[in-house]
Amino acid sequence: MLVIAKPLTTIDISSSSSDGSKVRVAYQGLPGAYSEDAALKAYPKCETVPCDNFESAFKAVELWLVDKAVLPIENSVAGSIHRNYELLLRHRLHIVGEVQLRVNHCLLGLPGVRKEELKVVVSHPQALDQCEKMLSDLGVVKIGARDTADAAQTVASNSARDTGAIASSRAAKVYGLDILTERIQDDVENITRFLVLARDPIIPGTDKPHKTSIVFSLEEGPGVLFKALAVFAMRDISLSKIESCPLKQRPLRVVDDSNQGNSKYFDYLFYIDIEASMAEPRAQYALGQLQEFARFLRVLGCYPMDTVL
Amino acid sequence: MLVIAKPLTTIDISSSSSDGSKVRVAYQGLPGAYSEDAALKAYPKCETVPCDNFESAFKAVELWLVDKAVLPIENSVAGSIHRNYELLLRHRLHIVGEVQLRVNHCLLGLPGVRKEELKVVVSHPQALDQCEKMLSDLGVVKIGARDTADAAQTVASNSARDTGAIASSRAAKVYGLDILTERIQDDVENITRFLVLARDPIIPGTDKPHKTSIVFSLEEGPGVLFKALAVFAMRDISLSKIESCPLKQRPLRVVDDSNQGNSKYFDYLFYIDIEASMAEPRAQYALGQLQEFARFLRVLGCYPMDTVL
Repeated sequence: MLVIAKPLTTIDISSSSSDGSKVRVAYQGLPGAYSEDAALKAYPKCETVPCDNFESAFKAVELWLVDKAVLPIENSVAGSIHRNYELLLRHRLHIVGEVQLRVNHCLLGLPGVRKEELKVVVSHPQALDQCEKMLSDLGVVKIGARDTADAAQTVASNSARDTGAIASSRAAKVYGLDILTERIQDDVENITRFLVLARDPIIPGTDKPHKTSIVFSLEEGPGVLFKALAVFAMRDISLSKIESCPLKQRPLRVVDDSNQGNSKYFDYLFYIDIEASMAEPRAQYALGQLQEFARFLRVLGCYPMDTVL
Repeated sequence: MLVIAKPLTTIDISSSSSDGSKVRVAYQGLPGAYSEDAALKAYPKCETVPCDNFESAFKAVELWLVDKAVLPIENSVAGSIHRNYELLLRHRLHIVGEVQLRVNHCLLGLPGVRKEELKVVVSHPQALDQCEKMLSDLGVVKIGARDTADAAQTVASNSARDTGAIASSRAAKVYGLDILTERIQDDVENITRFLVLARDPIIPGTDKPHKTSIVFSLEEGPGVLFKALAVFAMRDISLSKIESCPLKQRPLRVVDDSNQGNSKYFDYLFYIDIEASMAEPRAQYALGQLQEFARFLRVLGCYPMDTVL
């Protein structure tokens, strides 16, 4: 049996209020974080709810404190975040949407400061890495922060004129800082993909392009993944993502219908996004066939593609 | 033609001095970083050379300042580091080895401090995330740092008795700190895989298990990846890793023989590790066949597997 936690009887809140004016969306980080940008892209008038960590954002949805959560899942420069895939497996939430967000790192400083005055720049280590070229040109000392919004807040609250932060343009507004330079990342195209999570799945349509995210495990051995991909190839279903995650004998807590929160051992898990809607028979047949030889299979969600960057 | 920068006439330095007593190995970070642990696992008596960033570590090898560099490429919890794969494509170094390192995060404090006295804990944001459970039990404020060794150094140099750091046990020795608790990560098995890079490839053998790391790009369309994997499946070659990296119309600087440092545009790149040595005819045939329909193909290196954790 495919593991879908509830029958598809509910409809996504976003369908009834398209601007999301009554939706509360949890995200990890402080106000001004890129995750908050993602929440606002998905639901422009939503109320955003900051959470200290990803697990809290999941719990906020499960306990009906909020309606949705946004979760960064991969970045074109930094890669996928396996830990967040694991959270998806440990919890019972459904992916109901995706957000592709172009990351435009800005150099922020106190009002009136010129970038030449900076001696120190604070940010998340990944943001510091992604702006390596500009920072070495400036010749500043790099200091790590928990996230980019935290860095902006630090600069604002310390009132240090020689300290800058790398964060989003919205973080500048939130903390009353000046944008000294924009688009300072080495790779012009730096895109983060977020998932929108909810308690109930949406009824997938075929009116617009959909993606379906699945995770599965196979017996070990040569050719097993090849067989698994055959079920999609023979039905002309494209993959937009594939990733293996080695878990050599590591227990993984997964939630499924037969096996509430038990630990399972896998050698490998595969994360795949297919460019098909579960409303299409070819997708249903493909997953039915994959299930014949997968040791474990779960549909994480089926949702409209975000094609607007 | 398969792109191998130089004929396989040289032999790895590690083969001539098995403890690496004359080898200089560059790594990113400060003394006490996990990358330095990885260098010492590969070459127990090597001289380790800290670098400010990954690019500098690559350059240090290219300019003959050091013999090797170690580069973290994936972590079982955090995922792969796409940026470091891109560095491999932009430079001409070869993978000559891998190191699997079990990450054991320790809570460090000034000598004599008890963990109950801590009010603040400093570390790389990923390390803070990975130790979420213990930190919320302690009820401390979390502060970001550029890396774990930097966090340990900060605690040591600030002499703050209420501040702890999450770092390796070796960082405790390097900075004269006490280990207050060991193995504090939420996931017991937290493994980082590093690559060892050198100017020249090694001559792959068949005496022990080898891996070969390749990167390639395909025309877009359903079934193309399936065809690519067929070349391995039909020869019973197992994959130990597969990952897609979307690069929609993003230029990528790659170095190959025909096309020195030019920019190319790809829709997708695939990173695959096969469990086979390039000395085996089946691996040579498989790559020859893959080349027939790959738009781009490069062998990043063939090297003995690290099977000791």
